[in-house]
Amino acid sequence: MKLLIINGPNLNLVGVREKDIYGSEPFTVFLKKLRKRYHDIRIEYFQSNIEGEIIDALQKAGFLYDGIILNAGGYTHTSVAIADAIRAITTPVIEVHISNIFAREAFRQISLIAPAVKGSICGFGMDSYRLAVESFIR
Amino acid sequence: MKLLIINGPNLNLVGVREKDIYGSEPFTVFLKKLRKRYHDIRIEYFQSNIEGEIIDALQKAGFLYDGIILNAGGYTHTSVAIADAIRAITTPVIEVHISNIFAREAFRQISLIAPAVKGSICGFGMDSYRLAVESFIR
Amino acid sequence: MKLLIINGPNLNLVGVREKDIYGSEPFTVFLKKLRKRYHDIRIEYFQSNIEGEIIDALQKAGFLYDGIILNAGGYTHTSVAIADAIRAITTPVIEVHISNIFAREAFRQISLIAPAVKGSICGFGMDSYRLAVESFIR
Amino acid sequence: MKLLIINGPNLNLVGVREKDIYGSEPFTVFLKKLRKRYHDIRIEYFQSNIEGEIIDALQKAGFLYDGIILNAGGYTHTSVAIADAIRAITTPVIEVHISNIFAREAFRQISLIAPAVKGSICGFGMDSYRLAVESFIR
Amino acid sequence: MKLLIINGPNLNLVGVREKDIYGSEPFTVFLKKLRKRYHDIRIEYFQSNIEGEIIDALQKAGFLYDGIILNAGGYTHTSVAIADAIRAITTPVIEVHISNIFAREAFRQISLIAPAVKGSICGFGMDSYRLAVESFIR
Amino acid sequence: MKLLIINGPNLNLVGVREKDIYGSEPFTVFLKKLRKRYHDIRIEYFQSNIEGEIIDALQKAGFLYDGIILNAGGYTHTSVAIADAIRAITTPVIEVHISNIFAREAFRQISLIAPAVKGSICGFGMDSYRLAVESFIR
Amino acid sequence: MKLLIINGPNLNLVGVREKDIYGSEPFTVFLKKLRKRYHDIRIEYFQSNIEGEIIDALQKAGFLYDGIILNAGGYTHTSVAIADAIRAITTPVIEVHISNIFAREAFRQISLIAPAVKGSICGFGMDSYRLAVESFIR
Amino acid sequence: MKLLIINGPNLNLVGVREKDIYGSEPFTVFLKKLRKRYHDIRIEYFQSNIEGEIIDALQKAGFLYDGIILNAGGYTHTSVAIADAIRAITTPVIEVHISNIFAREAFRQISLIAPAVKGSICGFGMDSYRLAVESFIR
Amino acid sequence: MKLLIINGPNLNLVGVREKDIYGSEPFTVFLKKLRKRYHDIRIEYFQSNIEGEIIDALQKAGFLYDGIILNAGGYTHTSVAIADAIRAITTPVIEVHISNIFAREAFRQISLIAPAVKGSICGFGMDSYRLAVESFIR
Amino acid sequence: MKLLIINGPNLNLVGVREKDIYGSEPFTVFLKKLRKRYHDIRIEYFQSNIEGEIIDALQKAGFLYDGIILNAGGYTHTSVAIADAIRAITTPVIEVHISNIFAREAFRQISLIAPAVKGSICGFGMDSYRLAVESFIR
Amino acid sequence: MKLLIINGPNLNLVGVREKDIYGSEPFTVFLKKLRKRYHDIRIEYFQSNIEGEIIDALQKAGFLYDGIILNAGGYTHTSVAIADAIRAITTPVIEVHISNIFAREAFRQISLIAPAVKGSICGFGMDSYRLAVESFIR
Amino acid sequence: MKLLIINGPNLNLVGVREKDIYGSEPFTVFLKKLRKRYHDIRIEYFQSNIEGEIIDALQKAGFLYDGIILNAGGYTHTSVAIADAIRAITTPVIEVHISNIFAREAFRQISLIAPAVKGSICGFGMDSYRLAVESFIR
Repeated sequence: MKLLIINGPNLNLVGVREKDIYGSEPFTVFLKKLRKRYHDIRIEYFQSNIEGEIIDALQKAGFLYDGIILNAGGYTHTSVAIADAIRAITTPVIEVHISNIFAREAFRQISLIAPAVKGSICGFGMDSYRLAVESFIR
Repeated sequence: MKLLIINGPNLNLVGVREKDIYGSEPFTVFLKKLRKRYHDIRIEYFQSNIEGEIIDALQKAGFLYDGIILNAGGYTHTSVAIADAIRAITTPVIEVHISNIFAREAFRQISLIAPAVKGSICGFGMDSYRLAVESFIR
Repeated sequence: MKLLIINGPNLNLVGVREKDIYGSEPFTVFLKKLRKRYHDIRIEYFQSNIEGEIIDALQKAGFLYDGIILNAGGYTHTSVAIADAIRAITTPVIEVHISNIFAREAFRQISLIAPAVKGSICGFGMDSYRLAVESFIR
Repeated sequence: MKLLIINGPNLNLVGVREKDIYGSEPFTVFLKKLRKRYHDIRIEYFQSNIEGEIIDALQKAGFLYDGIILNAGGYTHTSVAIADAIRAITTPVIEVHISNIFAREAFRQISLIAPAVKGSICGFGMDSYRLAVESFIR
Repeated sequence: MKLLIINGPNLNLVGVREKDIYGSEPFTVFLKKLRKRYHDIRIEYFQSNIEGEIIDALQKAGFLYDGIILNAGGYTHTSVAIADAIRAITTPVIEVHISNIFAREAFRQISLIAPAVKGSICGFGMDSYRLAVESFIR
Repeated sequence: MKLLIINGPNLNLVGVREKDIYGSEPFTVFLKKLRKRYHDIRIEYFQSNIEGEIIDALQKAGFLYDGIILNAGGYTHTSVAIADAIRAITTPVIEVHISNIFAREAFRQISLIAPAVKGSICGFGMDSYRLAVESFIR
Repeated sequence: MKLLIINGPNLNLVGVREKDIYGSEPFTVFLKKLRKRYHDIRIEYFQSNIEGEIIDALQKAGFLYDGIILNAGGYTHTSVAIADAIRAITTPVIEVHISNIFAREAFRQISLIAPAVKGSICGFGMDSYRLAVESFIR
Repeated sequence: MKLLIINGPNLNLVGVREKDIYGSEPFTVFLKKLRKRYHDIRIEYFQSNIEGEIIDALQKAGFLYDGIILNAGGYTHTSVAIADAIRAITTPVIEVHISNIFAREAFRQISLIAPAVKGSICGFGMDSYRLAVESFIR
Repeated sequence: MKLLIINGPNLNLVGVREKDIYGSEPFTVFLKKLRKRYHDIRIEYFQSNIEGEIIDALQKAGFLYDGIILNAGGYTHTSVAIADAIRAITTPVIEVHISNIFAREAFRQISLIAPAVKGSICGFGMDSYRLAVESFIR
Repeated sequence: MKLLIINGPNLNLVGVREKDIYGSEPFTVFLKKLRKRYHDIRIEYFQSNIEGEIIDALQKAGFLYDGIILNAGGYTHTSVAIADAIRAITTPVIEVHISNIFAREAFRQISLIAPAVKGSICGFGMDSYRLAVESFIR
Repeated sequence: MKLLIINGPNLNLVGVREKDIYGSEPFTVFLKKLRKRYHDIRIEYFQSNIEGEIIDALQKAGFLYDGIILNAGGYTHTSVAIADAIRAITTPVIEVHISNIFAREAFRQISLIAPAVKGSICGFGMDSYRLAVESFIR
Repeated sequence: MKLLIINGPNLNLVGVREKDIYGSEPFTVFLKKLRKRYHDIRIEYFQSNIEGEIIDALQKAGFLYDGIILNAGGYTHTSVAIADAIRAITTPVIEVHISNIFAREAFRQISLIAPAVKGSICGFGMDSYRLAVESFIR
């Protein structure tokens, strides 16, 4: 099984940025542990702050991988184009969020991406990514 | 570890009702399999069509259990009182949905409960419940 | 033919309550006359002030009766769960209202239940129930 | 007893138009059957695609007939002027719809006419008209 | 000086219709008195329940008359087309209303026509028309 | 007959301010002409930029004068308190505006005062005041 | 004099739940003190988490008691049915809240019940109940 | 091939009316040139200011012509009934506008007709009609 | 103990104005009775129709008095500045209303002041002021 | 004549993606046919998934080309920046869409770009591009 | 050069009031330092809690001074009349705020005054005033 | 001191584009003058049309520079991701705009970025940038 994790804008700063919301563990540290735990799954990783590069990544993986785990960061709330990319590909996409976006600012409570994905997981910290991996195993 | 699954209105009809949305497996059948898989966890189950009985159940379990998995069904979108019960107790609550509520009718895309829970999982069919159990294990 | 009339909250007070809106005839008195007129139809009756009990009643009758006539009272405007119950069962449900809800307060002009029923009848006083019975005869 | 049925725009195409919504029976065929069933009631019929002609018809019948049954078609959702005509006359008006307008597009769920009529009946196919006739008999 | 008064839908029923709002004097009676008082002004009169005929009348008079006094009745709140006709002609148009539309139902408080006219007069009963005539004299 | 004209904020600058909207004639010059034309009517005048002083003036005149002509300027769109003062007194109040407020910015198209007055006149330049005086004569 | 205090969902947890908002005194402790202070008034008490049971209680007391003091908790913001029950009975109802609901989340600032009650008191902690009792004494 | 151009309200004034928006060429002059250019296509023309007559025209041509080009003028933004007529017929309808309606007043930016047509063309002046003819040729 | 009652616009007319809403007792008469009943409390009184003078009064008393009872009248619904003054001072402020503002016009159901005060009391007629005094005693 | 076609996000997948909406012909195949048909026009082509690269392309071509045909895909509904780029350049831009965006999801019915372009063409499948080319020829 | 600083309601309490938002330096202390720094500019100062007195001040200075620096406090969000005064005068007005109003309550994020001023500066504490002075120097 | 100016989409066209709004001076010319005036401050400059590159720039400078001056152009109104980047870094960011965005189109009056910055300056033309530099000096 081959999965791709795509992280959107500012998620490269996790561990540095607003630690009370996003925790103090850098994503790459977490990723290492995740790969160890699920060592028989190939877990690729891509991060970009550029909306269109996320679309490029979705398009490239979207006909080859078994699953995509997407945390679109701030683009979650504003990007019709990413949602359209998800609709255009055949690989199932799972939306994840580190924090509980429904308990934050009003603009963060609307996800334009949610209607296009297979499932959503949010609020579990880094563990949201692990649960998404779990969802592909069953 | 002791978990309580609370199912809200009409979830007693899963397996019978709108099978294209909710699948054809009755919840009790699924529950048996879930308990088998996580045999070292005690998983209790409660279902009611009555909003206030769901609140009663939350209050009773809410200071004793290690976790509550709540699918509030139609009350998800209308119940301030259930959300208040979640805020009033100390046991962490995870919200689950069988279908992807964000890909359905507009009124189903707002969860009054989401801001009060620890995390949300939706769209994975019955597997949403399993992922919620997983989230408590880590 | 077997029909069930379900009356929601405060409809047990009809005949006592706000008579200029709901008339001065108690529902039980009307029911007797209705049964007499349609003596070859079995017309059962259930009333509850509890949302979840109305759902229970819909679920119980919803695979056995030929028709359900539902006046959900105040829950008409707030209950996704009752509408979901109607969607979950196979017996056709007719929504009735004694008063013309569209000529009253703004919040009474939205019925969450209407999109789920087969048909709606409102504004004819008690006669709304009779017309609903008529609709099943044709 | 003398009743007038007024049909608004595009209802002359019933039986031809979108049959899955409106059925395959032309209105004139239905009307014949209706008059036969209620042979002791004089049921007149008027159809127009022109909003103002519907107002003219309401004004003419509105002080002479015992009842008016109005399906205003698309004007249901946009015509303050027809609603005003109903308010201006003394004959009671019943609003009918063939389909359940509350289960269709959002713009079809608001009736500007409903607050002005005595009662509304919708979702019963052609039978909506018969139930309206019934409502005048009692 | 040559003025045209255009009355829209249901204004032919003034004096008969809802007298507590519109008064008990038929418009034609009022018109006679108005013409007498302003005997040196030619005051023509047109009434129609048909939106498009009001547009026809505006177009015909709109390059020949010195002024048009328009009470568009129910079309006031729904007709972009009448407002466009006013914008398309050169004769100044004054909007009048018998009742104070701002003290009535919410839908009656928005005039689509008001932004297109030279001035508006409302709430003076029949005297609204006289004040509009006055406005052309100065 | 004794009338009071009340002008609200910035109307003391008419003739100086935005002449394309409000014209180049100072109000006091216009007032002199108005008094001359209606020499048998006593026309008092009060202007203030202070909302509460306008309320004071309405209260003082509101049980003694035959009519009040009010141009509340910018308070038209924001003052519940002035509208309440109009409701509290017995003298009829006419609302006037120099420009056609419905053809201007969105916020200027809502008058909180309009529901409380007897009638409204707007868009006739200074002549709006004269028409208001006329309305009291009839 | 005979008063009934009705407490809605989660108010049985006062003293345990979110103490910074609701205080640390259990309601039953407060009630004892209240009864002592107003020893010549009979103060009954009812609490339920079930909306329909609150309606039952209102209906039972609503023609027998001198006053009802209602804190509907989370149902304050969602229950048309409770508001309808208040409208249906003859005993005057006073709405109370422990916290200042207007200084909290947006959804808590709308009370569907407020338009139906005689008066509202909120923000005084437990003392809100005492002031409600006081209001019946005068 | 047989096409019908239907022009709605006030489009008979093109060439006379607001020339900066609609140009100075009367529609009939343009039509002559259009017919010349596409001499092997039969292009019929109908104009009316009456909403219902446009519906009549759509119904008549709607089962006989190869295509209909509709500029519904002001009814574009208010007519559910015309949109319903388009849905009821089998001939494909193309919506055209002379000006770019999206660059004008807010109320002109919503077309109730657009969801019912095959395609829309707007902003090309008279050339919008030619492009619509072109669309049928391909 | 030293309390200040501040009354806003038009409350000087209570007893004269709309008696069905506000009662027929002038405030000064009521005040005398109030002072008598609570003779050991110093109750000062200030009324103004001017928003800014109410702010001045709040600022002056806001660091010296034990409590302020504020009925801001029409400014309740429009004044951010008064709410800011309440936030700026240290004396607790209680908001009172004579009528039940939630049972009146929509614009009266929003209080900009409520989020800034300690507590609110409305709907008890003049007794609202007494209950506010009571709230300071406890 | 020199034209540039700019395609936005996911339009590189046309022919592969959601074929019932976008057809099964890849854009490059269509482009070849288009260039053949209009062999005397130079038609350049640019596609990007990156919003800012579309802006770059508009800026580069926007002072050199005779026309730009823009299908901004998902950015149509969210990009103020692309609309600003269109406003900033001198080459006329035509907006095209393959599907009828007004017959799809609500969020797809608002184009932020439409107010900035010269004209819009939508719903004709690939032929929308050809009609845009035609519009430049006349 | 002659500048006027106008401070609106509650700004006389700066240094005393909510110090975490507005700082602990009284405005008069700051003003002294400001005048010293810009000793060759005459900087006048006016503060009032009364909306109309702010309008008076704008009108008086608005044709004589070189610039006005306005912090309208709470009136920023509610005063059409102050915005109109700014539009009526010729002296350029700069809007300043001590705190970043866009990071505070929703009602504080709309400035009715901003569309009328030359420029806005907010969020710099007292330094907002200095930057406004700087803006006039250039 | 080290400052970074970041300019967003289309700001590279200033001096060429819509000169009545943005002036005729290219930004680079202005920048030279700015650096001269503040020769002891190091002022770096970055422009991009790509949202994600602006985020990259913010992240790179956001822990090293003393201040960032950001004109996000069209992304001001649509980018949650840029606002999140500002929240994620430690260097204070000042938002600037050349024109008064509050006096322009409605969509330009909402800044998603404003709640995240330290302060905002708009409407001063190029001088907005200088005032931002000034704000860092004090």
